[in-house]
Amino acid sequence: MNNQIFVKMALDGWNAQIKATDNMLAKLSDEQLMHEVSPGRNRGIYLLGHLTAVHDLMLPLLRFEEAAYPELRATFIDSPDRAVADLPSVEELRAQWTTVNEKLSRHFATLSPDEWLTPHASVAEEDFAKEPHRNRLNVLLSRTGHLSNHRGQLILLAPKG
Amino acid sequence: MNNQIFVKMALDGWNAQIKATDNMLAKLSDEQLMHEVSPGRNRGIYLLGHLTAVHDLMLPLLRFEEAAYPELRATFIDSPDRAVADLPSVEELRAQWTTVNEKLSRHFATLSPDEWLTPHASVAEEDFAKEPHRNRLNVLLSRTGHLSNHRGQLILLAPKG
Repeated sequence: MNNQIFVKMALDGWNAQIKATDNMLAKLSDEQLMHEVSPGRNRGIYLLGHLTAVHDLMLPLLRFEEAAYPELRATFIDSPDRAVADLPSVEELRAQWTTVNEKLSRHFATLSPDEWLTPHASVAEEDFAKEPHRNRLNVLLSRTGHLSNHRGQLILLAPKG
Repeated sequence: MNNQIFVKMALDGWNAQIKATDNMLAKLSDEQLMHEVSPGRNRGIYLLGHLTAVHDLMLPLLRFEEAAYPELRATFIDSPDRAVADLPSVEELRAQWTTVNEKLSRHFATLSPDEWLTPHASVAEEDFAKEPHRNRLNVLLSRTGHLSNHRGQLILLAPKG
């Protein structure tokens, strides 16, 4: 019973962040996403690619399936903005962002509360025995925070007022 | 047992955000905190006051004690930046930020996992019976996301590079 409540709280938090981000992205034009969130800082397109790459890698990290767009990692995680000249279009990234989050959402719906407490893919079995908090739900919690962090930056691209 | 793991995950997430924010604030000068995070957007001092006010109000919301600085609410929650001319100094806000988080931390340490699952102060008893996720731990989770969101903005004040 309590497990269900905990999982619901974590999923509610994730879903609220995804929804708020989607609503925000729907209001930002492709052109606005080419701007920097603050002078000299990351551009919107980079943050969108970064979030998409990180969420895509949650698919293997949560032991669901292979990453759908593993090529995003080099550009949007391993490299800072502007280090890679040849970026996917904003349109393409928007579509990948949606696809990846839909895949995650479908997998989330299949996990029982107990399965959320099983180890994620990057923790060794002997470590997990001692550190049972290194589970799949913890990945969800930390990625929710990661999304919240960058959403706070992306919103700076919206018209003021 | 599982309750303990859930509470540990939530508290680890909160503590990580507080630590990252404190480290960032230690590197930002009072003068840097007077700048806007992006042209025409909130100033650092406003975000610091906003986070302090929101965390202060967690004290009554979590049924721990009265807010220590309830006067911050009018300036930093109910009003946007620059609507109130007479702000506390950055130095004062830094001290209040630390005090409030220390108070929270001391209370957190006294709560058992089961107590985390009891209602927060803004949910009616009959609603809580139907919606048991509206508990104190959920306040912690949502405020962790709130902090992460604004930390992503404050970091834009740091020197680039």
